[in-house]
Parts: sequence; C-alpha cells; structure tokens
Amino acid sequence: MGRFDGLPIREELKSFEPYGAPQLDVPILLNVNENPYPPSEETVADIAASVTEAARGLNRYPDREFLDLRADLAAYLGRESGAQLTAEQVWAANGSNEVMLHILQAFGGPGRTALSFAPTYSMYPEYARDTNTAWVTGRRAEDFTLDQSKALAAISRHHPSVVLLASPNNPTGTALPIQVVEALAARTAANGAVLVVDEAYAEFRRTGTPSAVTLLPSYPNLAVARTMSKAFALAGGRVGYLAASKQLVDALRIVRLPYHLSAVTQAVARAALRHSEELLGRVEQLRVERDETVDWLRSQGLRAVDSDANFVLFGTFADRHAVWQSLLDDGVLIRETGPDGWLRVSIGTGAEMAAFRASLERVLKTDIGRLT
Amino acid sequence: MGRFDGLPIREELKSFEPYGAPQLDVPILLNVNENPYPPSEETVADIAASVTEAARGLNRYPDREFLDLRADLAAYLGRESGAQLTAEQVWAANGSNEVMLHILQAFGGPGRTALSFAPTYSMYPEYARDTNTAWVTGRRAEDFTLDQSKALAAISRHHPSVVLLASPNNPTGTALPIQVVEALAARTAANGAVLVVDEAYAEFRRTGTPSAVTLLPSYPNLAVARTMSKAFALAGGRVGYLAASKQLVDALRIVRLPYHLSAVTQAVARAALRHSEELLGRVEQLRVERDETVDWLRSQGLRAVDSDANFVLFGTFADRHAVWQSLLDDGVLIRETGPDGWLRVSIGTGAEMAAFRASLERVLKTDIGRLT
Repeated sequence: MGRFDGLPIREELKSFEPYGAPQLDVPILLNVNENPYPPSEETVADIAASVTEAARGLNRYPDREFLDLRADLAAYLGRESGAQLTAEQVWAANGSNEVMLHILQAFGGPGRTALSFAPTYSMYPEYARDTNTAWVTGRRAEDFTLDQSKALAAISRHHPSVVLLASPNNPTGTALPIQVVEALAARTAANGAVLVVDEAYAEFRRTGTPSAVTLLPSYPNLAVARTMSKAFALAGGRVGYLAASKQLVDALRIVRLPYHLSAVTQAVARAALRHSEELLGRVEQLRVERDETVDWLRSQGLRAVDSDANFVLFGTFADRHAVWQSLLDDGVLIRETGPDGWLRVSIGTGAEMAAFRASLERVLKTDIGRLT
Repeated sequence: MGRFDGLPIREELKSFEPYGAPQLDVPILLNVNENPYPPSEETVADIAASVTEAARGLNRYPDREFLDLRADLAAYLGRESGAQLTAEQVWAANGSNEVMLHILQAFGGPGRTALSFAPTYSMYPEYARDTNTAWVTGRRAEDFTLDQSKALAAISRHHPSVVLLASPNNPTGTALPIQVVEALAARTAANGAVLVVDEAYAEFRRTGTPSAVTLLPSYPNLAVARTMSKAFALAGGRVGYLAASKQLVDALRIVRLPYHLSAVTQAVARAALRHSEELLGRVEQLRVERDETVDWLRSQGLRAVDSDANFVLFGTFADRHAVWQSLLDDGVLIRETGPDGWLRVSIGTGAEMAAFRASLERVLKTDIGRLT
C-alpha cells in the first residue's frame, strides 16, 4: 500500500517528502540563515501597535494592491541601493518563495524551461516542479563563481524562459560581479526571457559589490528578489519582495491569489521598515562575525568559501554527516547542504559562534573530522 | 505594443486582468461577503498580545507544521459540526484560495481536469488556470440546486481528478443535501478522484443542514474547505483551512511552500479561535437579517434565492449593471455577479441593510429597476 493510495496525487510528487531543514529544539540554531538578533522591545511595541490597529478592521479584506507597503519597500531599496523605484515596480508576497512561485506561474509553466547554475538554492527545483516548469542547471566553477561565457552558452542551449541567479548565492555565499549579471540580463532580454536575480542576502554583501537593482532601468526583463527574512530579522513574518519593471510586476498581479498578503502581514512589514535602521544595524556586526569565521575556519586548515551572505560554506569533510551530527550532539545545529563534503554554518551572535568554534575544534581533533 | 511586450508571459494569461471586485471607498460595503462586525476590543487586545509575543521571535522561521493551530482548528470543527478530527487531518494556508491552490497542485495539473457546477465561485477557474488544470463545468438546475444523476453523469463524462462543490454555493447561497454530497464523494472515490466541498459559508447554514465534515470518516478522498474570513470576521487575517484524511493532507504538505504560514498569522488565528464564541455570536444575527432580506426582496416582487450563506442573490433585472450603479450612487456597494440579471448583496448590519432596502426601493420605482 502506498501512502497516497486511492488519491490522484501527481506521479512526480509521490516520492517527495515535504521540503525543509529539520526543526530541532537545540540551544544553538545556525542552520537556516536566520538573523540571531530578535527585534528590540521598541520595534516589537511598534509592530504590536500597528497590528492592534489592523486587528480592529480584520473583518474586512486587506488592500489587494498594498501600494503603501510597496511604496515603503521602494523607498527602502532607494536608500539601500540607490535605485529610483516607484511603488508599481515593487511586488511582495508571503516570503520570497511565493514571489518566485508567481514568477514561474507567469513566465514558466508547461512547455517552458527554467535554468539556474548549481550548486544553488535547493528550493529552485521545487518552484519549477510546483509550476510544471522544466528544470535545467548549468554548473558553477570549482570556486562557485560563474563563468560568463559558459553561462551564456547554457542559455543558448536550453532556451529558458526564466533564468534564476542567486547573488549572493546560497549555499556558497558567492556574489556575482555586476558585469556578469548584466551580460545575462542582456542575453535573456534578447531572447525574450526573464532574469531573476535572487538577492535574499544582498544586505550582507561586502563593500563595493553593487546590487542588481541598479540595472533595472535598462532591463525590463530583470527582476531582483529580496526578502525581509534575513537582514530585517523577520523570517517569522514571511515577507519577500522584488523590484522590476512595472510590466513585469503587472504580469505577477494576474497570477497572484487575490488578497494574498494579509492586513496583519502588511502592518508588520511596514512597522519593521520604520525600524530599518535598528534592524539593519545588526548587519554590520554579522558581516564582521562572518569574515572572522572565514578566517578562523581557514586557520584550522579548512576550506571556507568567500561569503557575501550571513553564512559560510566550509569543508571538505570525508564524512560531513558525521561532523554535522557531532556538532548537533554539542547542541550546535548547522546545515548539511551544498556539494558533497561541505557544510554550511549561519552566522549567529558572538557567543553562538564561539560555541560553534569550540565544538568544531573538538570534532577536528577526532577521526570524525578528517578532511578530504 | 502589447502591455507585456518582450516578456515571456504565458499566452493564456495575456488577456486577463488581476482578479477582484472593485475596492471602492463608499459608506456601505455589501459586495464581498465580509462580516460587518469588527472584533471586540477584548478580542483585539488578545490578538495584539499574541502578536507581541510572536514578534519577539520574528527573527526565527515559523513552525512549518503549525500543529498547534491545526489542533485548535480540529477542536473548533469538532464543536461546530460534531466531527472527530486530529490535528494531522487539518490543513491551513493564507486564505482558502491557497488551500485550493495546494489541492490543484497536488491532484490537478497538466493532463488533469477539474470539474464544478455553474454558476459557482468565480475564482475556481483561476485556480485551475494557475495550475494548468483543464477546467470543465456541469450545470446547476434553474433553481441552482444540483441534480444528482446529472452531476454523476458529468463526472463519468469528464473524468475529473478533482471535483469542486461549493455548499453553500457562491453566489447563489444554495446548500446541497448531504445525500447528494455523499453520492459524489462515493463516485469520486470509486474513480480515484478527490471531492472538495467548499464550505466557506458553512457557519451560516440553516438549522438541520449537516456539514460534509460528518462524511470524512468514510471518504479518504474528501476534503472540506473552510475559512476564517466569513463567520470568524477575519477576512483581513487570511486564514483558510480544510479537513480531510491524513493521507490527503500529507499530499498537500509536499506542494506547500515551506513556512507558508507566518508566525503572526498563526498567532492571530489562534487568538481568534479562543474568541470563537464572541465572533460566532454574530452569525445568528446575520442569519436572521439574511432571512428577513429574502422575505423583503420577495415582498417587492423580486426573485431571491434561498440562502444558507451571508448573502442573497436576487433579481432578475433587465439591466443589472444600471441597478448596481444606481445603488452605488447612493453609497451602497453590492456585487454584479452570477447569471445575467442577478445581483448579490452581502448581509450587513441592520442599519446597512436598511440603507440597502431604501436605495433599492427607490431604484425599483424608476425605469432602471425594471424586471425580466
């Protein structure tokens, strides 16, 4: 007896388990790239006041177009990346997950192909699967950068209608030079395709790395996805967004479910944006902690990938699962992801990183920690 | 130049406008079947306290399985309909919209067909379109009931993998006898198909009309969809849910986007469920107001469909758009929906319904109000 006997579940779903990292109750959570700093009591109070106001009208449907929130997000991107954007150029949904779903519903689907470059974010093939879009991957180089001519060749070979490019990339932390992004934007534009640059971790990028939002005026086929989950410390609030041309956003408006963003979510996001200075103040700390983590890992004889995100990919271990488990036994949960032999650690507080280092140092002295 | 020039938008989307009733700023809103009663200050305070607590941990991802909320919803359905359900038999998402999307992603899709019976909820074909599911409709009878043998014949003819049955139906208000629902549940089970009974308006049903949740123990292919938008007065909170077999729910868990339900949404829903007695206390008032509205419409020489929901379909007008506009000119917004000649009015407060009656009475005395 199969577990879905008698139900017409689609063949391609039968073998899947629900996606997601283990949610375990351990003291030190460095596995899903969360921001370790909760909002201050001042921000919490403002969120609560905003939600109280929204709650008084919860019997009514929310604003379907949420232009106030979209204007706030446009203003934030202007401050953060120097982009001049209107509210109509911004879109938001329940996590960047849903933003990506909207993109593939509008521009992917049956008979269409989405292309990305592996190793990259493990949810991408699920978005493709859930929208019946064919999924193909090119390869990143050994150092996880992207060879521009190979990337363009992959586009010529596969004719994707959507190209997904994570920068900084998850799980490697690699940011792409803006020239490479622009070359792909130009080629996809020439092909009548959409280029999505997933900048979920953009706020953590190193100084001098420009955001793809600066390319928006030249490429109406470009969408730059962001999230409030990471830099804004709002993973629990589920607010992802993107910036693009108004035409591109208008296409997403057709496939979105009406009222997809609740009045409460809108209120929470707007309150958090009012406190962006406080919330983003932690970003600088996390970048410093990240760079120190890279240095420390290398000082231990490990490989650690240069990172523009709030996590570091390191290795390579003969038995990464054993290392992961050994850290977990110490109460430190990291992520078993990326190419074989590598592990990913999210950047936590100073104390959390000290615990991570202590645990890993212990493991490296044992047979479990042997490298390849 | 088309509005999506240069973008690979799917052909079948090009001609669409984003779905939704006009959101107009008028005094009396009787157009989208909202509950006219906002939550009490006591409920608002509890929601605010719950969200404050959740906000302190918003830097963390929400509970992906939200079993606490699912347990609360199961307990509520037990009180409301006498169903014995476990938390694992309940699913929830950002509005019943998204619940329906999950169902069609899991059980519909390319090469599959979804069937419903018109006239019915106008979003159903959009769910099918967004999941590349073929969409077919049988017909309801002249009085908007469903002829069981014709419905079974439509299933035999079209071989749907999913049958959507709204009861009470939108926009007609018609509840189906449980025997008809059971006959369709049995036939779809025999065909290896899923039957979705959309009970968005179930709490407004007239005394003696059983809910399809009572059939769940016998039909693992049956899903009963509900929402907190209507009876719970939580349209702005966006919480839809369904009850079904654990296997059916497990299939939805595969296609849901991870962390689709925010920590804030979970907190709001659980707070509202703690106040279900207060929130549902308004349902009785609305049912009385609805029955009086039906009586009054008939006393004016109009046709009004028996309703088990919080709205009434009435008519039939030679020019329904002119009637709609004329009411709007008086500040009364109703909905131009359903078969030609009919209009739908949501049940508001006593004062709102008095304004509706006064406006319609005026229109009926003019040429605009002529009937067919």
